[in-house]
Amino acid sequence: MPGAPTPWDGKEVSREVYLDYAAATSMDPGAVRAMEPFLSNEFYNPSAPYAPARRAHAALEDARASLARVMGARPASITLTAGATEANNLAFACVDGEVVTDAAEHESVLAVAQARGGVIVGVGPDGRVDPDEVAQAITPRTELVSVEAANGEVGAIQPVRRVAAVVAAERDRRLRAGESCPILLHVDASQAAGYVSVAVSSLGADLVTLSAAKVYGPKQVGLLWSSDRVRLRPLVLGGGQEGGVRSGTENVAGAVAFAHSLELAERMRPQEVRRLAALRDDLEGRLRREFPWCVVSGPRQGRLRLPGLLHVSFPRLDARRLVILLERRGVYVGTGSACAASRMRSSHVLAAMGVPDVVAQGSLRITLGRQTGAEDVAYASRQIAACVRDEMARLSLTDDDMRQAAGGGA
Amino acid sequence: MPGAPTPWDGKEVSREVYLDYAAATSMDPGAVRAMEPFLSNEFYNPSAPYAPARRAHAALEDARASLARVMGARPASITLTAGATEANNLAFACVDGEVVTDAAEHESVLAVAQARGGVIVGVGPDGRVDPDEVAQAITPRTELVSVEAANGEVGAIQPVRRVAAVVAAERDRRLRAGESCPILLHVDASQAAGYVSVAVSSLGADLVTLSAAKVYGPKQVGLLWSSDRVRLRPLVLGGGQEGGVRSGTENVAGAVAFAHSLELAERMRPQEVRRLAALRDDLEGRLRREFPWCVVSGPRQGRLRLPGLLHVSFPRLDARRLVILLERRGVYVGTGSACAASRMRSSHVLAAMGVPDVVAQGSLRITLGRQTGAEDVAYASRQIAACVRDEMARLSLTDDDMRQAAGGGA
Repeated sequence: MPGAPTPWDGKEVSREVYLDYAAATSMDPGAVRAMEPFLSNEFYNPSAPYAPARRAHAALEDARASLARVMGARPASITLTAGATEANNLAFACVDGEVVTDAAEHESVLAVAQARGGVIVGVGPDGRVDPDEVAQAITPRTELVSVEAANGEVGAIQPVRRVAAVVAAERDRRLRAGESCPILLHVDASQAAGYVSVAVSSLGADLVTLSAAKVYGPKQVGLLWSSDRVRLRPLVLGGGQEGGVRSGTENVAGAVAFAHSLELAERMRPQEVRRLAALRDDLEGRLRREFPWCVVSGPRQGRLRLPGLLHVSFPRLDARRLVILLERRGVYVGTGSACAASRMRSSHVLAAMGVPDVVAQGSLRITLGRQTGAEDVAYASRQIAACVRDEMARLSLTDDDMRQAAGGGA
Repeated sequence: MPGAPTPWDGKEVSREVYLDYAAATSMDPGAVRAMEPFLSNEFYNPSAPYAPARRAHAALEDARASLARVMGARPASITLTAGATEANNLAFACVDGEVVTDAAEHESVLAVAQARGGVIVGVGPDGRVDPDEVAQAITPRTELVSVEAANGEVGAIQPVRRVAAVVAAERDRRLRAGESCPILLHVDASQAAGYVSVAVSSLGADLVTLSAAKVYGPKQVGLLWSSDRVRLRPLVLGGGQEGGVRSGTENVAGAVAFAHSLELAERMRPQEVRRLAALRDDLEGRLRREFPWCVVSGPRQGRLRLPGLLHVSFPRLDARRLVILLERRGVYVGTGSACAASRMRSSHVLAAMGVPDVVAQGSLRITLGRQTGAEDVAYASRQIAACVRDEMARLSLTDDDMRQAAGGGA
C-alpha cells in the first residue's frame, strides 16, 4: 500500500486502504518463503519412501507439531484439511445423532446443521449465544453442539467456556443416568485465531476448526483438531492419508505455511489485540462523532468483540452502493456475513440479532488487520463520512431522518 | 539435479535421478511464478465486491476458462477441487444407484465404489479393462461406470472410448425401453493428463477428473468436469462457491497455477510423449539386456502404455530393499500403485492382473518426466543393475534361478 498521504490544498491524496481482513488476509511474507521450497525443489510425495520424500514427510509432521503446539495439543490430534469449511463439515460427520448450533455461525456450520435437521438456537441483540438457551436445546439424543469462538460479521466473542460447561454437565448427567449417548462440543475458531486463545484446553472443546487463510496463511488450508474422545469419519475416501480420515496427497507447502502463520499470529496476538482495538475504537469514535445516529452492532464491551472489527450501519442507505463508492476512493470494506459478506447477500447474522431491515441494509463490516495503520483509519473514516454524506444528499436525507430511522440514535 | 556425470577411473560420479513422477511432479517454474501474486498482493477473496477482489475473481475465471479450453469444455462445467481424490469422490456422489468400476483404479475410486457395494470388474494380465466385461457388469440399475484413462502403476491406457460406447449403448437401450434410470461414465484422467488427450469429446465421458499435481502444478488442486447431463451434489456444504457444489473460499493461486500447468502439459504433449517413450524404451532395453528374465508389466504395445512409465519386476527380490539401495545411489523410484506405491503396500493392481507374488514383491514402478534426460536413464539403469546384482549375490541367486522364478523369462 502506498505511503502516507499528504493532504494538500484541501484535496486528499488518495490511497488504498484494505479493511476486509475477515474476508481474506494477505499471506505473511515469511509464510510465503516457508512454503516456496515445497512448491519447487522439495516437491516430493511425503508418502514415498526415499530420502527426499522423507524430508517432505518430516516437514509435514514438523508443521503439524507446530500447529499442535499453538493449540496445546498432540500432533496426532490434528487433521489437515483444505480449509475451514471442510473442517467444519468433517466435525459434523463424526456423529449421526442430533446437533445443536446457533444462528450466528458460519454458513458451513449452519448449512450442515440445517441439512441434518439440527436445532438452531437464536442469539441476543449483541450477536452472542446464551449458554442457557444451548442447555435448553440439548436433548438426551444431542450428539454435537457447535458454537464458534468468535463471529466473523459482528465480532461477538462467544461464551465458549460456558457452553463447554453446559456440554460437560450434560455429559455428567448421562454418565450418572447410565446413558451411553456421547455429546461433543465443536468450536469453529477460524475468525477468532490471532485474537483469542486457540488452546484447546482454554476452549474446552472436543473439536476445533482453524483456517490458515484467516491468519495470514494460504487459502484452502485448514485443520480440525479432535480430542481422544472423538472418532472422525472421512468425508472422502482414498489413499488413507491423515490417519485415514482425509485422503489425498498432502499439501506440504500449505501445511508449512499454515504452521508459520499460526505461530506468528499467536506470537503477535497480545500486541495486535491492543493495537487493533485502539485503531478500531478510533475509527468508531470518528464515525460516531460524525454520525451520532449510526448503529454499531455486536457486544458493547470491547473484550467481547474481535479487536479489529467494526460493524456499523447507516440506516436507509444501501451498503452495496456505499461499498462501490468507497472502492472508488480506494477503501475496501465488506458488508454482510463472513463469506456472504463480501458477496452482499442479506445477512443471516443481523437477522438473527433482530436488526431491522432498514438498519441492516446500510451495514458495513469493517475489519482491520496487520497492515492497517493509524493513517489508514483516518483516511478511511474521512472517505466513509464523505460517501455517507453524498448518499444522504442524493436521497435528501437529513441527520434527523437518520436518527429516526436508527430508532432514536445509537 | 547436478550436471552430467563423468565416469572416471571406473568410479561413477554420483547424481540424483528422480524417477517417481507418477507420485509427484515438481512444479513448473512458470506455474510457480503465475501463482505467486495470488499468495501476496492479489490475496483478495474472489467473492468480495470491490475492484481488487474482482480482479482475483477474474483470474479465477480465466484459469477455469483455460482449463476448460484444454478439455474442449465449457468453463461452467469445471468444478475446482482440492485434488483428484476429492474430485473422484464428488463424481460418485452424484448418483445413488449401482456403480461399476475396475480393479486397477486409483484407491480413491476403488474405496468409494467398495463402500457403495459396487461391482469391480477384473483387468487382463496387461492391466487393461475389457469393455465387454464392463458391459456384462452393467445392470438396468447401474448409474455410474468409472474407468481411468490410464493406470498409474503399470501404465495401461484404458479403452475409454470403447467403454463409453458400452455406456452409450446401455443409455440407448434404456431410452428405447422407456426406462428412466440414467447412466454416466466417469473417467479419472489424473495419470493420463499430459500423455493422452483430455478433451472430453475424445474421452466420451460425462465426468472427468484431473489433478494439478500430476502435470507439474500444485498439490491439493484438481478438478471435476461434468457434462450437462450431470447434476453434481456437494460433499461439503457452506458458502456455496463453485456453483454451490464445492464450498470454501476459492484457491485462486492454485487454480491459476493449475491452468498454467495443464496448458503447458498439453502444449508439450506431442514432443514429451515421443521423448519419454524413447527414454523409457532405452531404460527397458538396458535392463532387459542385463536381466533377460526381468518381467515388464503392462501392455506390450507402446501406444497402450503411458510413455514415461516402466513397471519392471525382479522376481524373488524385495522391492522395498531395492528402493532403499537405489536411494543410497541417488536414484528415487516407486513400488506398488499410484499412492500406495511409494508407501510400499502390496499392489492391488498387480494382484488384479494375476502377477504371482514372487514376481510382484520385486516390482519397481519407474516413471520418467520432464526433467529426465538420457544421462539420467543411463545412470539409473547402471545403478538398478548394480543393486539387483548385489541383491542376487546376497541371496545367492543366479540368473537361472531368476529366469525360473519369472516363469521362464520375459
